[in-house]
Amino acid sequence: MTQSSVGKLHSELFLQQQLQEVITLLEKQQLEKSLVQRDVATTDLIETVLYKQQQSRLQNKFAQLHPADIAAILESLPLDQRQIAWEAIKTDHEGQVLLEVSDAVRQTLISGMEAEELANVASQLNTDEIADIAADIPKRAMLKILRSLNGKERSDLNAILAYSENQIGSLMDFGMITIRSDLNLKAVIVYIRKLGKLPSHTDKLFVVDQNNVVQGVLPLQRLLTHRPALQVADVMVTDFVRFQGYQETAEVARAFERYDLISAPIVDENGKLQGRLCIDSILDFVREKSDEDLLSQAGVDEEEDLFSSVWKSARNRWGWLLVNVVTAFASTRIIGVFEDVILHLVALASLMPIIAAMGGNTGNQTSMLIIRSLALGQITPTNVSRMIKKELTLAIINGTFIGLIMGLLSLLLYQDVALSGVMASAMFINLLVAVVVGLVIPLVRHKFGYDPAVGTSVILTAITDSMGFFIFLALAKVFLIK
Amino acid sequence: MTQSSVGKLHSELFLQQQLQEVITLLEKQQLEKSLVQRDVATTDLIETVLYKQQQSRLQNKFAQLHPADIAAILESLPLDQRQIAWEAIKTDHEGQVLLEVSDAVRQTLISGMEAEELANVASQLNTDEIADIAADIPKRAMLKILRSLNGKERSDLNAILAYSENQIGSLMDFGMITIRSDLNLKAVIVYIRKLGKLPSHTDKLFVVDQNNVVQGVLPLQRLLTHRPALQVADVMVTDFVRFQGYQETAEVARAFERYDLISAPIVDENGKLQGRLCIDSILDFVREKSDEDLLSQAGVDEEEDLFSSVWKSARNRWGWLLVNVVTAFASTRIIGVFEDVILHLVALASLMPIIAAMGGNTGNQTSMLIIRSLALGQITPTNVSRMIKKELTLAIINGTFIGLIMGLLSLLLYQDVALSGVMASAMFINLLVAVVVGLVIPLVRHKFGYDPAVGTSVILTAITDSMGFFIFLALAKVFLIK
Repeated sequence: MTQSSVGKLHSELFLQQQLQEVITLLEKQQLEKSLVQRDVATTDLIETVLYKQQQSRLQNKFAQLHPADIAAILESLPLDQRQIAWEAIKTDHEGQVLLEVSDAVRQTLISGMEAEELANVASQLNTDEIADIAADIPKRAMLKILRSLNGKERSDLNAILAYSENQIGSLMDFGMITIRSDLNLKAVIVYIRKLGKLPSHTDKLFVVDQNNVVQGVLPLQRLLTHRPALQVADVMVTDFVRFQGYQETAEVARAFERYDLISAPIVDENGKLQGRLCIDSILDFVREKSDEDLLSQAGVDEEEDLFSSVWKSARNRWGWLLVNVVTAFASTRIIGVFEDVILHLVALASLMPIIAAMGGNTGNQTSMLIIRSLALGQITPTNVSRMIKKELTLAIINGTFIGLIMGLLSLLLYQDVALSGVMASAMFINLLVAVVVGLVIPLVRHKFGYDPAVGTSVILTAITDSMGFFIFLALAKVFLIK
Repeated sequence: MTQSSVGKLHSELFLQQQLQEVITLLEKQQLEKSLVQRDVATTDLIETVLYKQQQSRLQNKFAQLHPADIAAILESLPLDQRQIAWEAIKTDHEGQVLLEVSDAVRQTLISGMEAEELANVASQLNTDEIADIAADIPKRAMLKILRSLNGKERSDLNAILAYSENQIGSLMDFGMITIRSDLNLKAVIVYIRKLGKLPSHTDKLFVVDQNNVVQGVLPLQRLLTHRPALQVADVMVTDFVRFQGYQETAEVARAFERYDLISAPIVDENGKLQGRLCIDSILDFVREKSDEDLLSQAGVDEEEDLFSSVWKSARNRWGWLLVNVVTAFASTRIIGVFEDVILHLVALASLMPIIAAMGGNTGNQTSMLIIRSLALGQITPTNVSRMIKKELTLAIINGTFIGLIMGLLSLLLYQDVALSGVMASAMFINLLVAVVVGLVIPLVRHKFGYDPAVGTSVILTAITDSMGFFIFLALAKVFLIK
């Protein structure tokens, strides 16, 4: 890939080179430090000089990088090196970097900072940016930050923090430009030129009346393509999409996707402008939600720093593992009840895990499709019964098909027609159970306002395992043991 | 929620109401049709009149809706009703609706259309939009469409179709505005006003030289905030992010997130402008990739229409289920080998599924974290060994901890110290195996250019099951059977 003289061709190779260079600098620093320490005669002075030299090299390196690139590098560094690198980042970058890193990494960075220092960093940020990282800031530092804000900023901050994490109010910013509808476009252009700078993601201006009620939006495109003598009222879009702060982010994200929005006003129940929501927050949300869904399937509770301490990671994963210990033991107790049946026909011990495993797999297929359809807002009260009917039909077909295969395979293995019949019937019944459970868990969790993805897989597998063992061994007891 | 007189407060309740109204119209139509058919005396004429009446009601309903909303309604309708609704959508909306629906639903809509009709619909679309749906268009219709394009359009279309699905070239459009650097801003504003309309997502203009090489970008914000007398060359941004068509969409999506981009130029190896990439394509990609990852975990191969025929759904899910049949049978053959051991000590039959299940769960936690870190580009050659070391340490801690719990629980159940020892050791070893497998599968798949998410869970579970049974029963045979 040739790097042309003009412009920057983005590639992650570049980022990896930067990371490698930072690591080299850090390792050099550590090496020199250890050399100095080994030589007891050397004074602290030399150590300090060498250290400072390396730090300024690191500082120069970081000064050339975009805060988001610095964040990516910090996320890829192990804890000890990350701390040293963080100290080398000039203060006027720190705020932006803190915003860009993941929550888990932000906590490791903040944990090493004094309240005073943190308040300084926060002073580089907008109110909405402070709100983004507020959850990770210790109380003492937060008080300092609050004291440094003026009345308007403090009430803005409180407005955002009043919303819960899954409401769009928590993601709003205040970087909006408002105009009146009786201006002409020329006056608007003069006004913008006087402002000197537009907030990022400004693709439209919000038109408000004297009570701050949003009357329409003026896209920059309309501002640029219409005659300057026209009035805002004649050019603005009145059929625009707007949201209220309490709406769920998942729903709003779908609206952003559907209508290809870049920014949208957030209003209160009277139509008064409260703030603005931008596509970058939505993209971050969709990415984070997708991560969460994937991880929660495996029973990992929250975002994990790639290099968080082993103990922290362990705690993060034990929750569901312990649930698993309990459910796994419960399902084996069912086998325990039928130990006499197994002693009569030991082939049952070999065959029973298949019934359980296939049930788990089929149930997971159903539940994943439901979880995804719920996430896309495709399941509505009007079509849910049709969908359930379809999944059940599918379960009967799959059950018959896989039941027959299983019956035939066990016939080949054990030449026992009765055993094969039990195998096929248990398979059929357990697949039906699995699909019903795979339908019910996410739908019920969703109905009661819980995230349908969390823990579904663990609960489902626990049920299909227990039921699989029970159905198979109970049928065997009734039909095979004389 | 009050609906204010000005503007549209977005809410999915609105969409659900629309869906309900459409369904009511459709059901009325079907009802009247059946009434007419029952009365044999009625002529075809009346039937046609009634049908037409309902169709025009449906048409009016759809005419008021955004194409994306129509698409969402079609996706929520069962096949038969979807077909009738589709016929009621006026031709000048059809193209946009086809673009907005999911691939699976698009296929059901297109399958009922004549080549002629489809070519007409395509004529409403831009070249890049035709490229988006090209994969679903039958050959005969595609030829008709190609014949209707001019030379430039045909070469644009070919340029997009030349890229594979996971390269950004396949997502580019040609809705860019190019200007020369020697213009002043006033001239640019006059030029835009003459164009009369800007393509959607235009947040910047591309500055090119006479060879179409991109020299910089002029954000609309700079155009609006700088003095009109200034030259483009003095105001444009030269340190801008650009991409090449062959770059992977996953990598480019991360760049869009990192640098908060709305649009970016795509250039060839000489820096010549090829096309444009916009945030809406990126958001769609992130959403689709997340769906795919989630579904592939459960062994569902591709996007499924909520109402696709039962047979189509069954085929979509059988692939992995059959793989599961094979792996499940393989793991039970291992149990078969140890049937004599189980006959000696039937408690083994109850305990062995726990070893397998806990191994699967732990391995899945590790593999999911790796898959996610790979998707975020966090795993680089420089930190992979550190990360492996961390996961292995974690496996040893978890193995010891869970091994001890399992040993204790089985001691309580069976009062057999030797059996508990075997249980604890087998647990420990299988958790180590699980973590190693959970690390190796996604890393190796990624290294060889495959999607690390596909099938990982199925393969992992197959290995942890077989190994779990083998380790436990083999240890039991050696240490418990005299």
